Amino acid sequence: MLGSGFIGRFYADSIQGLRSKDKIVSVYSRREENTKKFATDYNCKHWTTNMEESIAHPEVDMVCIALPNNLHEEAVRLCCKHKKAVITTKPLGRNAAEAKRMLEMVEAAGIFNGYLEDLVYTPKSLKAIESVKNGAIGRVLWAKSRETHPGPHSDWFWDIEQAGGGCILDLGCHCVELNRSYIGKDIRPVEVMCWADTQVKPIEAEDHAIALVKYENGAIGQFEVSWTFRGGLDLRDEVMGTEGTIWINSFLRTGFEMFSTGKGGDYIAEKAESNTGWLFPVGDELNELGYNHMFNDMFNARESGKAPKETFYDGYVVNAVLDAAYKSAKTKLWEPVMLDIWRGRVGVTKDSHLIEFDADHYLVKEETTHYGAKKVILKEKKSGKIIERVLE
Amino acid sequence: MLGSGFIGRFYADSIQGLRSKDKIVSVYSRREENTKKFATDYNCKHWTTNMEESIAHPEVDMVCIALPNNLHEEAVRLCCKHKKAVITTKPLGRNAAEAKRMLEMVEAAGIFNGYLEDLVYTPKSLKAIESVKNGAIGRVLWAKSRETHPGPHSDWFWDIEQAGGGCILDLGCHCVELNRSYIGKDIRPVEVMCWADTQVKPIEAEDHAIALVKYENGAIGQFEVSWTFRGGLDLRDEVMGTEGTIWINSFLRTGFEMFSTGKGGDYIAEKAESNTGWLFPVGDELNELGYNHMFNDMFNARESGKAPKETFYDGYVVNAVLDAAYKSAKTKLWEPVMLDIWRGRVGVTKDSHLIEFDADHYLVKEETTHYGAKKVILKEKKSGKIIERVLE
Amino acid sequence: MLGSGFIGRFYADSIQGLRSKDKIVSVYSRREENTKKFATDYNCKHWTTNMEESIAHPEVDMVCIALPNNLHEEAVRLCCKHKKAVITTKPLGRNAAEAKRMLEMVEAAGIFNGYLEDLVYTPKSLKAIESVKNGAIGRVLWAKSRETHPGPHSDWFWDIEQAGGGCILDLGCHCVELNRSYIGKDIRPVEVMCWADTQVKPIEAEDHAIALVKYENGAIGQFEVSWTFRGGLDLRDEVMGTEGTIWINSFLRTGFEMFSTGKGGDYIAEKAESNTGWLFPVGDELNELGYNHMFNDMFNARESGKAPKETFYDGYVVNAVLDAAYKSAKTKLWEPVMLDIWRGRVGVTKDSHLIEFDADHYLVKEETTHYGAKKVILKEKKSGKIIERVLE
Amino acid sequence: MLGSGFIGRFYADSIQGLRSKDKIVSVYSRREENTKKFATDYNCKHWTTNMEESIAHPEVDMVCIALPNNLHEEAVRLCCKHKKAVITTKPLGRNAAEAKRMLEMVEAAGIFNGYLEDLVYTPKSLKAIESVKNGAIGRVLWAKSRETHPGPHSDWFWDIEQAGGGCILDLGCHCVELNRSYIGKDIRPVEVMCWADTQVKPIEAEDHAIALVKYENGAIGQFEVSWTFRGGLDLRDEVMGTEGTIWINSFLRTGFEMFSTGKGGDYIAEKAESNTGWLFPVGDELNELGYNHMFNDMFNARESGKAPKETFYDGYVVNAVLDAAYKSAKTKLWEPVMLDIWRGRVGVTKDSHLIEFDADHYLVKEETTHYGAKKVILKEKKSGKIIERVLE
Repeated sequence: MLGSGFIGRFYADSIQGLRSKDKIVSVYSRREENTKKFATDYNCKHWTTNMEESIAHPEVDMVCIALPNNLHEEAVRLCCKHKKAVITTKPLGRNAAEAKRMLEMVEAAGIFNGYLEDLVYTPKSLKAIESVKNGAIGRVLWAKSRETHPGPHSDWFWDIEQAGGGCILDLGCHCVELNRSYIGKDIRPVEVMCWADTQVKPIEAEDHAIALVKYENGAIGQFEVSWTFRGGLDLRDEVMGTEGTIWINSFLRTGFEMFSTGKGGDYIAEKAESNTGWLFPVGDELNELGYNHMFNDMFNARESGKAPKETFYDGYVVNAVLDAAYKSAKTKLWEPVMLDIWRGRVGVTKDSHLIEFDADHYLVKEETTHYGAKKVILKEKKSGKIIERVLE
Repeated sequence: MLGSGFIGRFYADSIQGLRSKDKIVSVYSRREENTKKFATDYNCKHWTTNMEESIAHPEVDMVCIALPNNLHEEAVRLCCKHKKAVITTKPLGRNAAEAKRMLEMVEAAGIFNGYLEDLVYTPKSLKAIESVKNGAIGRVLWAKSRETHPGPHSDWFWDIEQAGGGCILDLGCHCVELNRSYIGKDIRPVEVMCWADTQVKPIEAEDHAIALVKYENGAIGQFEVSWTFRGGLDLRDEVMGTEGTIWINSFLRTGFEMFSTGKGGDYIAEKAESNTGWLFPVGDELNELGYNHMFNDMFNARESGKAPKETFYDGYVVNAVLDAAYKSAKTKLWEPVMLDIWRGRVGVTKDSHLIEFDADHYLVKEETTHYGAKKVILKEKKSGKIIERVLE
Repeated sequence: MLGSGFIGRFYADSIQGLRSKDKIVSVYSRREENTKKFATDYNCKHWTTNMEESIAHPEVDMVCIALPNNLHEEAVRLCCKHKKAVITTKPLGRNAAEAKRMLEMVEAAGIFNGYLEDLVYTPKSLKAIESVKNGAIGRVLWAKSRETHPGPHSDWFWDIEQAGGGCILDLGCHCVELNRSYIGKDIRPVEVMCWADTQVKPIEAEDHAIALVKYENGAIGQFEVSWTFRGGLDLRDEVMGTEGTIWINSFLRTGFEMFSTGKGGDYIAEKAESNTGWLFPVGDELNELGYNHMFNDMFNARESGKAPKETFYDGYVVNAVLDAAYKSAKTKLWEPVMLDIWRGRVGVTKDSHLIEFDADHYLVKEETTHYGAKKVILKEKKSGKIIERVLE
Repeated sequence: MLGSGFIGRFYADSIQGLRSKDKIVSVYSRREENTKKFATDYNCKHWTTNMEESIAHPEVDMVCIALPNNLHEEAVRLCCKHKKAVITTKPLGRNAAEAKRMLEMVEAAGIFNGYLEDLVYTPKSLKAIESVKNGAIGRVLWAKSRETHPGPHSDWFWDIEQAGGGCILDLGCHCVELNRSYIGKDIRPVEVMCWADTQVKPIEAEDHAIALVKYENGAIGQFEVSWTFRGGLDLRDEVMGTEGTIWINSFLRTGFEMFSTGKGGDYIAEKAESNTGWLFPVGDELNELGYNHMFNDMFNARESGKAPKETFYDGYVVNAVLDAAYKSAKTKLWEPVMLDIWRGRVGVTKDSHLIEFDADHYLVKEETTHYGAKKVILKEKKSGKIIERVLE
């Protein structure tokens, strides 16, 4: 485990949680004090403030990178050097160039690589994505992901040099990969329009952004990210398809509601803003946020010699989309997604939107009126005229 | 009442509903059969298929226009001619030019004019807007309004000539005015970025669109509109402020849930898609959709010689924003909102986002850690460096 | 209007609200100061501290009683004397004996009488009850109504002599009538089991109670009432039928959610406990709580010479059920509901629960398994044996 | 693993799920075909249709009983004989006498014993129970648990001889233990009032029941159970305390909503009734239903030589409460809970409900009025009179 901060601890809780057979054998982080504490808390037999020493440790089979964004590349380089399997927290790089170098490095080294995009692995996402694949909502038209909260916990996030960006990079990476998972990971993201601003925080980076991402098949992705949201951690996905709809609320409204006058309150959940009044705790954050199923996939994939669901390649695609978002926020134009490496389908065209009603008409809409009658609205193929017809 | 269709009947139900003292004395619509039926159903003593006759009717004090979009201007012209107070369904015009002509006409004629933007008048909106004005959520950063459903009831909506546009014009007009109401109706909408597409329906007009609207004070408005949504009428607003959040669900989730196997089902609600399985009826559509409070404001304003909350001027501003949206959807650029007439504040600048912590630092974030300690993240004013400090 | 307190003002807001043609011409209450203030606020031309004077006032057509429970009977007596139509707030009496005397009085006097049970008139209740009548959920098995909050506003509620009881009388009256409306108002309530206790408040009366009410057709009613609930006004109904389910949340979760740090908060809703953190305001309390539709029914009924949906007779039945509840709370036995006057059906028997599958079997359950197969569980008519059979 | 049915498979999915180090080495069930299939699906090296053979298998360290209720006792007897740790599905026995024999057996044999009451182990329950212990909602006044669905999957549940009862035994066991966990497992359940009926199904046992359970400290427990509920699996808990409220929805409303027209639908969740319209899937049933945390506790307890959170003793207490419920449903009286063995606190008295305001008054209620004033309602200690006082 590289890193002993907030996210490293979350990962460790999951990796060694419940009845897991997996074990963290070595921990590295920059500050000795934190490293020792982590080692004690998680029963790691080895700890060090020298990154390479931890990676090279003979009992280490897989390296988990839980470091600030600017340190990912160096850590990956060392994993390649020592031929260790590597999994990295999100985002993969601070930009697509960095991500691409990492991707090429691990593939050249032939090592196992996994991209720790946990929100794709939440139990709700897994089931919803599977339902979409099974056709439950038809052709996907729009996929939106929203992640907003009152700002990250650690200081380095707020420093643009270490973080590489603001909430777009921190949170948008989740959203883009969720969108891709619903729309189809083999469908190419084509161009991006993004608005971003620093509305509240005294920082260089953006603290609020909204973007639209066009996919080659005509579907549209959307993300809404912010470090200025008040009320907790707002984590919601919405998907519209021709035959259905999906609404997922992963954190603030999950069927657990508590009111407390506050005489006796306790810590409730990551990023809760209060412990009095109406509170919305989450039962099991590790599971709800996808950590358990993510590590399960990573470790099982490694053992069975397969690629996990999320690899460095996915991290690279995400970074490329975010690069376009950053550029668009400046140029105010729809910016193309620059993908030197693309392994999905090419030349996909938009599906037809013409639904045949009969030989002479397309169907616009079918409905039951107030009065119980069945009514159709049709378009005449030849004239293009819209007509209304009451059936029976 | 001009028009006897779906919306005209909704209006009539509201105007003459409950214990109302108001009365529809004359109804005009194009088809005799419908006109008669309306007159019978609502006890109108006079009906006609000649619009001017209805407007000129001596007992008519105020004219309510519930006609297809392309007939608004002519109706307004006749009201001016006969000096009758006029209220018009949304959108005011098919575009800003039309709207501006109507605005100038009524003001030249000196007649009372009201813009029937019902969603600003829903009980939830009224209370939420008032709370925002009282400062309950601080400075507004973002206001989003979403209105999507499986498509309108009447045939003319689907004909671009009569309607003037697709779901942007039909539904976006609501959203823009809701956004303005939260952000401040005196704050100028500056420019618009819009994506629009015809993804499903066999029509010329757009059936799905998303837009961002920048306001002069740095706030951002957003609308999501569609005629392709599956599952009912999705009517939601979200507002983010520096000190709070508002989430309003006006239709599909209002605390009324029913499961039915369908042995005996009945009509539930406007735009419901089914009458079996889990259903989400609305108690009182007229009230929930704002009709009652809207007509209350219109009629009270008229009686007290004041302007109502929503006038032709507001309708004109909305049309101007929508024009920019349509243009942007084509040019793919942020398009300026062209407002020849602007009566709000000018030269508003963005609020500062610097929060003083002490003489040397700005406050980035304050939080309570897992371990109960109070932590602040600060920015040094001079160096711009981000630091973390644990308080006591 | 007799009474100028909390409930009197709510009634007046509704009666004279929106575009109402109805008018309060006279107000009586005990304290001169309050009476005057009410008269000013609601533009009543006449006010008095003499109850009979108000009732007898020549312009008063209908008397609305909004007084403490112990004053209802005297007020009704005076209405009879002056032959004025009368509508009374809930509960009708402090017990069934009082209620019966009032019922007999108004019927002897031949005057219009209405029972102001508002919760049966909420838009959600009206629609749900209608759906039940239309068969949407099949045969009703269970109807539960819950009303709990942190205690009433006015001092007299807490005084057992004036109020006649605690939360059972104050809130249970709503619940019993809601239950009856779902189960069928013509179905006789047979016996009651009630638990009641004073768990928190320093009062004589109960501050928490739960009761079960058996109806002659085998359906079961339930109420949960309390003055000790924390978190606001919890107003929920649940109904189970053989073909469906109804869940209604009338107050705390109606699709309006607000988070506020509290810098600028304002009064939100009746019985809210806080104005910071997550808040759940109600858009339009008057409408959501049923006042508008209740007075609409009362006044329309009066004008058309019909009985309203809720009359003194209903109030009497409710009081009889509550009497049995009070008795049961003491005796710890199922207590019969003593109804000297019963105008519904008699001799109703329980519906059969045997569903024919084929000539030899009853159907216990039909389901689709994990594996997609259709499975039935059957009971052999002769042997009574339970068997499982997979179809196709 | 004894049993290869629905629940046995759920247990196996959890025990061997994710990255678990635990392994099912042997499976027994009555039908050879099922046993073999289970062994194949879960990679058990040993399978048998002889129960004792499986229990005695040398690699079996702990026996998990997932058999119909009437076979628990025999299985436990064999575990005692072979001195194997044993964990048993709920309910422990068909009645308290059976449960007591099992409890005494395992304690005499000195073997590890665990009671598989999963709903106490759901992530939401674990966190909520901990919050209650930390005082977040003050003194618990009422704890309700509701479990209703359209009926169990396997045929034996519907046969009263094998099952020992209907929905009270099947579902009430969960509810009673949840209630106890909130109220305090050391607080004695004193007496029970229960209504039960067979309203829908052609069976001997009850298909719907509601009960109240009085605890020695004055708290009240409640359960609502049914096999006739329509709409899915309704699993909700509510707790009222002097300082707060808890609402948990464990299944039907957990932040995952899907609408599907049904063209392409798939199996969604245990006990869902449909795969079209609005659906409410559960992300990860194993985790949401508490299986993961339950087995985690069981296995960790076993390894560390401690008792798990839920033991046979708890199962026995639950059976005793249910016995009283069954008796009460027949006698229509509050029936005492007969507990020959009681290991909790004794002689607990009801807490005082008097809150001191000042030397002369108790506080009844404090509130903020419409008009912003702070108001208290007080009770004079001497006179018992209720007064109202507005503070500044």
